[in-house]
Amino acid sequence: MTNALTLDIPAGLPYIDGQRDFDAPVAAVFRAHAEPDLVKQWLGPHGYEMDIEQYDFVSGGRYRYVHRTDEGDYGFHGVFHVVRENDFAIQTFEYEGFPDVVSIESLRFEDLGDRRTRLHVHAVYPTLEARDGMVSSGMETGMSQGYDRLDKLAQGL
Amino acid sequence: MTNALTLDIPAGLPYIDGQRDFDAPVAAVFRAHAEPDLVKQWLGPHGYEMDIEQYDFVSGGRYRYVHRTDEGDYGFHGVFHVVRENDFAIQTFEYEGFPDVVSIESLRFEDLGDRRTRLHVHAVYPTLEARDGMVSSGMETGMSQGYDRLDKLAQGL
Repeated sequence: MTNALTLDIPAGLPYIDGQRDFDAPVAAVFRAHAEPDLVKQWLGPHGYEMDIEQYDFVSGGRYRYVHRTDEGDYGFHGVFHVVRENDFAIQTFEYEGFPDVVSIESLRFEDLGDRRTRLHVHAVYPTLEARDGMVSSGMETGMSQGYDRLDKLAQGL
Repeated sequence: MTNALTLDIPAGLPYIDGQRDFDAPVAAVFRAHAEPDLVKQWLGPHGYEMDIEQYDFVSGGRYRYVHRTDEGDYGFHGVFHVVRENDFAIQTFEYEGFPDVVSIESLRFEDLGDRRTRLHVHAVYPTLEARDGMVSSGMETGMSQGYDRLDKLAQGL
């Protein structure tokens, strides 16, 4: 899979850096992040049902969603510090199982030309322990599976 | 000055940690963070005029303010991820002179009893360079002077 997610988990720094290419134009990849009816088709691991309670992908907007699984419900929420169409977004992120442990993520949508897009993700955690906990939660699998679905979805937009 | 600001700038980690005691009840220290007419009386270094364009200190709220100095204007803005009265807040923070370089700050208001309050600040930056740049911008002086004014202000509330 040439478009596979690459993750960098730097030792001793509370970051997660990801990069993923998509066979779709930047406008389609952005739109799949912007419209809740599209977001719920790809975000998260395979096989989870996603309920979006709020998702206002604009500067100053908010979001909250719940992944429903056989093991229980997992809620997430945050605010969008900035959203620039087809370009850039920064959001806070809280998994409600660890209240008040809040990370901040930037998303950069790079137009590669030839109807291809590279997504750059930089997530910063309040502690190294919070970063390591996120990594050990199976985040890489969830991101990877989600982006596989996003790639297919964005190709059809 | 027994209430002086103490700052920890850990080597190799993109954090700034601050702690400051106030001779005022937690409700007064919180209120001085919550009401823009009070915020503009203490936030920032001595001698700056502060214009608050927006300041909605609630979960999901936004803020923007400008410090006006003889050398020019300095704008700042962000969003409040969470605000809990007399307890806790998390906000994003962007100095508009470095657009898209966004930190996240948590504020914890600890009731020390005896009408005293301890404020704990944990700020996390997207890179070590951004953290170091903030430190070298004179942030410690600005925080220290601001908190001196906040202490006096909150004692009178």
